[in-house]
Amino acid sequence: MEFTIQQIAEVLNGSVEGDATQRISSLAKIEEAQAGSLTFLSNAKYEAFLYETKASVVIVARTLELRHAINSALIRVDDPYSAFSQLLEFYAQATRTGKRGVEQPSFMAETSEIGPGHYRGAFSYIGENCKLGENVLIFPQAYIGDRVTIGAGSIIHAGARIYADTVIGQFCVVKAGAVVGTDGFGFAPQPDGSYKAIPQIGNVVLEDFVSIGANATIDCATLGSTRIGRGSKIDNLVQLAHNVEIGQHTVIASQSGIAGSAKIGDHCVLAGQVGMAGHVTLANRTTVTAQSGVGKNVKQEGLILQGSTAFDFKQNQRAQIVFRRLPELEHRVERLEKAKSTTEKP
Amino acid sequence: MEFTIQQIAEVLNGSVEGDATQRISSLAKIEEAQAGSLTFLSNAKYEAFLYETKASVVIVARTLELRHAINSALIRVDDPYSAFSQLLEFYAQATRTGKRGVEQPSFMAETSEIGPGHYRGAFSYIGENCKLGENVLIFPQAYIGDRVTIGAGSIIHAGARIYADTVIGQFCVVKAGAVVGTDGFGFAPQPDGSYKAIPQIGNVVLEDFVSIGANATIDCATLGSTRIGRGSKIDNLVQLAHNVEIGQHTVIASQSGIAGSAKIGDHCVLAGQVGMAGHVTLANRTTVTAQSGVGKNVKQEGLILQGSTAFDFKQNQRAQIVFRRLPELEHRVERLEKAKSTTEKP
Amino acid sequence: MEFTIQQIAEVLNGSVEGDATQRISSLAKIEEAQAGSLTFLSNAKYEAFLYETKASVVIVARTLELRHAINSALIRVDDPYSAFSQLLEFYAQATRTGKRGVEQPSFMAETSEIGPGHYRGAFSYIGENCKLGENVLIFPQAYIGDRVTIGAGSIIHAGARIYADTVIGQFCVVKAGAVVGTDGFGFAPQPDGSYKAIPQIGNVVLEDFVSIGANATIDCATLGSTRIGRGSKIDNLVQLAHNVEIGQHTVIASQSGIAGSAKIGDHCVLAGQVGMAGHVTLANRTTVTAQSGVGKNVKQEGLILQGSTAFDFKQNQRAQIVFRRLPELEHRVERLEKAKSTTEKP
Repeated sequence: MEFTIQQIAEVLNGSVEGDATQRISSLAKIEEAQAGSLTFLSNAKYEAFLYETKASVVIVARTLELRHAINSALIRVDDPYSAFSQLLEFYAQATRTGKRGVEQPSFMAETSEIGPGHYRGAFSYIGENCKLGENVLIFPQAYIGDRVTIGAGSIIHAGARIYADTVIGQFCVVKAGAVVGTDGFGFAPQPDGSYKAIPQIGNVVLEDFVSIGANATIDCATLGSTRIGRGSKIDNLVQLAHNVEIGQHTVIASQSGIAGSAKIGDHCVLAGQVGMAGHVTLANRTTVTAQSGVGKNVKQEGLILQGSTAFDFKQNQRAQIVFRRLPELEHRVERLEKAKSTTEKP
Repeated sequence: MEFTIQQIAEVLNGSVEGDATQRISSLAKIEEAQAGSLTFLSNAKYEAFLYETKASVVIVARTLELRHAINSALIRVDDPYSAFSQLLEFYAQATRTGKRGVEQPSFMAETSEIGPGHYRGAFSYIGENCKLGENVLIFPQAYIGDRVTIGAGSIIHAGARIYADTVIGQFCVVKAGAVVGTDGFGFAPQPDGSYKAIPQIGNVVLEDFVSIGANATIDCATLGSTRIGRGSKIDNLVQLAHNVEIGQHTVIASQSGIAGSAKIGDHCVLAGQVGMAGHVTLANRTTVTAQSGVGKNVKQEGLILQGSTAFDFKQNQRAQIVFRRLPELEHRVERLEKAKSTTEKP
Repeated sequence: MEFTIQQIAEVLNGSVEGDATQRISSLAKIEEAQAGSLTFLSNAKYEAFLYETKASVVIVARTLELRHAINSALIRVDDPYSAFSQLLEFYAQATRTGKRGVEQPSFMAETSEIGPGHYRGAFSYIGENCKLGENVLIFPQAYIGDRVTIGAGSIIHAGARIYADTVIGQFCVVKAGAVVGTDGFGFAPQPDGSYKAIPQIGNVVLEDFVSIGANATIDCATLGSTRIGRGSKIDNLVQLAHNVEIGQHTVIASQSGIAGSAKIGDHCVLAGQVGMAGHVTLANRTTVTAQSGVGKNVKQEGLILQGSTAFDFKQNQRAQIVFRRLPELEHRVERLEKAKSTTEKP
């Protein structure tokens, strides 16, 4: 990929300041960029780098006022971040061409079918009675159990495991090593103190545009479906237990764990290492900060929660501050008690 | 599977109220059940659904007194939950028939043996000198290292990795992507500040009826064995470090992590995201609530612990409540101090 | 392996007390050792076992003074732990011989190359244009994407996934099921509340002597590199997000999660289940205790941090102690308030 600054500016609908004929061959971060590369400035925190960068051209906002002289050319656009993302996407498509065709050895039961434009990597496994759509990409060593459905354009990465009866929509991504649809952690305690596995006969449903992170685990439902709504994004090493239901366009960051039958609304954001108890419900647009634990239903929409167990974010922040000076607070109470006993004595 | 209500009632040793000739073709949750399906009512919290469900038949307790008219037939039994579990199990066996035989290509060293009734999925790997019993199921892409022993009736799911010298008992389940017996995290700091790996020559022993969750990791012992006792159940993404010992019929929920050489007794319950420090011991029947961290030995049996670091559950609950109003408590102390200084001034 | 105590003492440069002609055939923990085995005493906490062990010989410090009579022979050395480690290493090499050669079926694109002394296990996959050095071991079912570089002597364990463009140095170990270089969790919120994946075109760089734990996940950079410095050790189930940078000889224990663009210095120690927010920086030699969450830059070197959110370890310990008696503290304030209102009334 090599383009002139002028060509790139035209694609981005931007205006050039500086030498528009220079040729660009790579994309880079502003603090690491070298000659021949393009970068961008979106966050004002990084503005100091603008005057130091070795990038040949920097995408900046139309409204940016320069405070010093600069060495790079500029492309001015309305939204530098979006413009840069657009280039990244183009670059990714150009360099990481989707795989196509069938590598051998691979395994697909005769009762299963897959649409045109597919990729089946070496050592991938597709069980009985599966229906995989057009342009579905199954990377090497992925496992697709019996009776799985996968919609057009979805990608199952290397070593991901999709268990029996899972239903995956269109344009989903299941990253490497994720396990979708395995039996949940359901055990009935017996009179002798041992546990007996409760059969898990439900499945997992991923609606369209869902993304599942690497080595995440999503259990099938005991009955019915564990369900992730359209456009929701689940990060690496997240655990979703049996019968969890997640709404649309909700984001769950890495290492969070959601216990059985919990329900999370639309447009929620759970930061990393969050825990959520079983059967608990979160209203739409709830935000939960990192390492928090949600133990009760949240009915009001749009709240921000923090703490283990979690409550109002600002209230928690204030309590945290006092927590740090608890020993001092206790001393102050001691001093008051001593003063009181002194005044009482006489 | 299609049966009449009468037939099902006879299997469950129950009595029918309503039309016993209706035919049932599926099992469902009470709030989602449709005509032709069977459901159950066990938890009184869900009783409202009994009067609204579309299920053709509901399994209820013999002692239940109806408060309103209902549309569904009833099967009355002693324990509705157990009865329903019994049906689930039957259903699971009928629809998810165990795989049998050998799919190709798969790999088994000539020095290894496996009993009759086995399944070896495509791309599964069995190293040297392994002894696998009758009815052992090795799913596709599973890895069995050298000198591994697996007892009769155990199931190793897709992509699980069983490292060298692991001993697995009878009727164990290792779920997809779990890693059992890999080297632990043992590094000796060197004088120059670098770390040197300490050889890990022990193994992992899973006694009978143990279950290991998807993508869980269980390290081998430095010396001797990391051991999980009979009937214990380990959930997805749990980490058990080198030389951990877990008693019988203990349950560890998802994303908990147990550091090296910790010992957990029998009949313990660790909820999700619990941490436990190295070399710490937990007495039998200890319960640890979610996200707690156990840093000290627990010698008394039957305690419930909460918090990071963990202490008595009820005491922690009370402290949590005051924590929320810490800023207010600090203000109260301030007011007392001001009042004191006012009274002192004159 | 069978040696006399005298032979072992010579290798360790130690002096023998007791019968140096006895033959040793195994290594064991002091509390589990049987006749014919060798063990060591390093930690004074275990000294009681010295007088009870059935080991034929115990490695102890030259300076140790016996308090009772013992049954075992002794080998006295300067550092018993190092001496024992040395024997362990020898034992491990002797019994767990490295695999060599190519098992079939396995897959390597014609455009890729691998040095002499390598192992490629069955069902392993190596994509296009990879360069793998001498003595590289690729275990069964491992996945190496396109354009990956792996230095001499590195080991990729069963089912590990190394995604495109990853650069791995010499003598690294990537354990079973780890995922290195998959796309990070980057999604740009759209005006309609949905999310769009931001292309991730960077890579992961592991410098020499790095170890990555089982089922850990390390995302590639959005741009540039996610980088782990020479000699750093990452435990099982750890998550490192896009553009994380980790210095040299830093240790991160199991289930810790580091958010995007965070930077960790040299010689740091993060205990288990630690979280670290995005873009945060940790100075060299910082220690973070288990389950803590680091939310702010740490500029001073050598600090110990605890808590979620984390601050000075000792201060946190003191605050934790008062936290446990918060209900009591509140009562004390109440009593002071009542006393005040009583004295004010008249």
